[in-house]
Amino acid sequence: MKLTEMNKEQLIDFKNKNEELYNDFKAKGLCLNMSRGNPCKEQLELSVDMLSVFDDGDFVSENGVDVRNYGLLDGIPEAKTLFADMIGVGEDEIIIFGNSSLNAMFWAVQTAYNKGVLGGTPWSEQGKIKFLCPVPGYDRHFKVTEFFGIEMINIPMTPTGPDMDMIESLVAEDESIKGIWCVPQYSNPDGISYSDETVKRFAALKPKAKDFRIFWDNAYCIHHLTDSPELILNILEEAKKVGNEDIVYIFGSTSKITFPGAGVAVMGASKKNVDSLRSYLGISIISYDKMNQLRHVKFFGTFENMKEHMKKHKAIIAPKFKVVVDTLDKELAPLGIGEWTDPKGGYFVSFNAPSGCAKRIVKLCSEAGVTLTGAGATFPHGIDPEDKNIRLAPTFPPVEDLKQAMELFVICAKIAAAEKMLAEC
Amino acid sequence: MKLTEMNKEQLIDFKNKNEELYNDFKAKGLCLNMSRGNPCKEQLELSVDMLSVFDDGDFVSENGVDVRNYGLLDGIPEAKTLFADMIGVGEDEIIIFGNSSLNAMFWAVQTAYNKGVLGGTPWSEQGKIKFLCPVPGYDRHFKVTEFFGIEMINIPMTPTGPDMDMIESLVAEDESIKGIWCVPQYSNPDGISYSDETVKRFAALKPKAKDFRIFWDNAYCIHHLTDSPELILNILEEAKKVGNEDIVYIFGSTSKITFPGAGVAVMGASKKNVDSLRSYLGISIISYDKMNQLRHVKFFGTFENMKEHMKKHKAIIAPKFKVVVDTLDKELAPLGIGEWTDPKGGYFVSFNAPSGCAKRIVKLCSEAGVTLTGAGATFPHGIDPEDKNIRLAPTFPPVEDLKQAMELFVICAKIAAAEKMLAEC
Repeated sequence: MKLTEMNKEQLIDFKNKNEELYNDFKAKGLCLNMSRGNPCKEQLELSVDMLSVFDDGDFVSENGVDVRNYGLLDGIPEAKTLFADMIGVGEDEIIIFGNSSLNAMFWAVQTAYNKGVLGGTPWSEQGKIKFLCPVPGYDRHFKVTEFFGIEMINIPMTPTGPDMDMIESLVAEDESIKGIWCVPQYSNPDGISYSDETVKRFAALKPKAKDFRIFWDNAYCIHHLTDSPELILNILEEAKKVGNEDIVYIFGSTSKITFPGAGVAVMGASKKNVDSLRSYLGISIISYDKMNQLRHVKFFGTFENMKEHMKKHKAIIAPKFKVVVDTLDKELAPLGIGEWTDPKGGYFVSFNAPSGCAKRIVKLCSEAGVTLTGAGATFPHGIDPEDKNIRLAPTFPPVEDLKQAMELFVICAKIAAAEKMLAEC
Repeated sequence: MKLTEMNKEQLIDFKNKNEELYNDFKAKGLCLNMSRGNPCKEQLELSVDMLSVFDDGDFVSENGVDVRNYGLLDGIPEAKTLFADMIGVGEDEIIIFGNSSLNAMFWAVQTAYNKGVLGGTPWSEQGKIKFLCPVPGYDRHFKVTEFFGIEMINIPMTPTGPDMDMIESLVAEDESIKGIWCVPQYSNPDGISYSDETVKRFAALKPKAKDFRIFWDNAYCIHHLTDSPELILNILEEAKKVGNEDIVYIFGSTSKITFPGAGVAVMGASKKNVDSLRSYLGISIISYDKMNQLRHVKFFGTFENMKEHMKKHKAIIAPKFKVVVDTLDKELAPLGIGEWTDPKGGYFVSFNAPSGCAKRIVKLCSEAGVTLTGAGATFPHGIDPEDKNIRLAPTFPPVEDLKQAMELFVICAKIAAAEKMLAEC
């Protein structure tokens, strides 16, 4: 029976029953964290052999530079080759960074803000500027634009990507719109992969602002959860076809391929963009950790091997996603409470509670020992206008813990939904 | 016979003789790079055992966090303990960064520029601002302030550090002066260690600008070349004594202790400064490479062991400094050409040519195959007002190569000095 079909008495009874179950859970004293998309221990073990690659005593890059020493600002050539394949750019269209693509994105925004794009007026000197933010989205993206005082405009997501009609019309009219945050494949948190049409429309975007850039955070480019991967079009190639190749900055990393704390982050863009950005990069660093770059290259050898390696991750985490989705399907679908995704890749399940219930659910879970991503985190300034979206991150806990956490989650969702309906009676 | 004692004929003869020697050198087709303070291969080998520290399969920090995963924004606790000792601060007065102290310094300037210091008005909103730059100094410092359009004021160095009378009087009067670049121990390039009085006067500095900070780049804190190290006073301790602890940002790194390309950089400051900076740091990164932090901790164990390790570096590079200084002493001192330092630590010998000769000497060397640091590089905007200073970096080349390079250098210095005197005849 759906909640909407229950009368007041039935709702009260339903709520009481679930509150009892909730109190039983509370008594267990759980302590689980599902707040971030952290890989689990078994995933971290997959790359430990990478730490032995220097046992051969060979520290020399293919261009003769000892990677232990200074130099090679934008990365060692063999890392460029490997990661250019990963993000779909050429070897002269890539910069290799340190362990954090967030850091690379922050730096790219900061450079545009303080020095402008391709020699143009710095964003900081153009008065109020704005970014488009497909929502729900990645909280850390929004914090970067917030840091620089950039106004953020919410763009609704659709099953094929962000609302392109809205984006095209906004950027065509408003020169103060300077960028957009995108996670184009297995989007954070919805797990949506942009359709070919969406990518083509992004590639052909003609913003009024010449210094507008698409921040294409392809964080989950090879992070598939099924045997039939959803592959998006190559945006740089599409942009080249329409003479628009400077429109996009592409980001990626091995944080969820090797080690979150010690991976390699990269940025791809047109040669013109890369040449300009490189000239600024040399002010802030001599070189990123080239030993770690070579470590990755020696460990993987080829991009094909990286993709093979990802199958081992899939084997570990796909069952965890199944626990989440199965529990929601079984416990909430029959009651008509909320909506959720069944992602084919990425790191999250996106749960949309009945309006006004997300904060309450997260609070109930927290008080019973399960920490979720804060409600609202997936929106700029942490404000979810409908208080609906909750990002579930299934990868870190062991399956048994995850089962418990999800059992609790659906109880909390049931309580919150019943409370809401009763309040509206 | 000193050059000043020669008549025109003798000078011409002297010049011709050295030009012959120069042409002989040119014919050899040398190709040596002494432009940067790069450690040599033997130095890089000293830390290779650091790469095996994870053979024990233990990746857990003392606070229970797996260093391979996300988290611990400001560093693992055991790295804080180790490096707090190195830069002379407390464990709650330090942030551990990635592999580059330059990157940490850039970030600290950028944060003050865009967000202000301790909640004050951003430097970017205060009109023209200025930095004091002891000269000669480190070119990469000057490039950072240049990047942000900050005006740079040259401050002369003395044997006890920068001219403190000048600094005190400038900062007391001019609120637009926001900082000063210092390499307080074995300064780059002069190798001067600031006297106790200089450090105390820095610690007690009372600038008109409340958001003034001393950028104390203690890059060579344990990089001694003799058995009687020159140790400077602890500036944070001195500042605390006079209630002025927020005045200083301290930087350090293991770039020249372990690997230039894969070391660990740190920043120390008062708890108040660190707490404020940490809150901004989390916008741009989730965590720096904690595996590399733990690698360093496991390798060294204690700060005492780090200091022992530096003796191995000394054994390799002290003889190289001797080659440089001995050659200058033998070949140029009797002729009265130029002045130079005999540093007790650090990475450079600072050579002051006769005025107007530095560029010419660097050019002559370059045309004969030896690349030196560009003349002028040790001054803001690359402008050495007297065209005198040349930074010699002896560590990288093998001793035999270095001997050749120095033979060439003194020939070039002789030619340039003779040319100059003849032009003035």
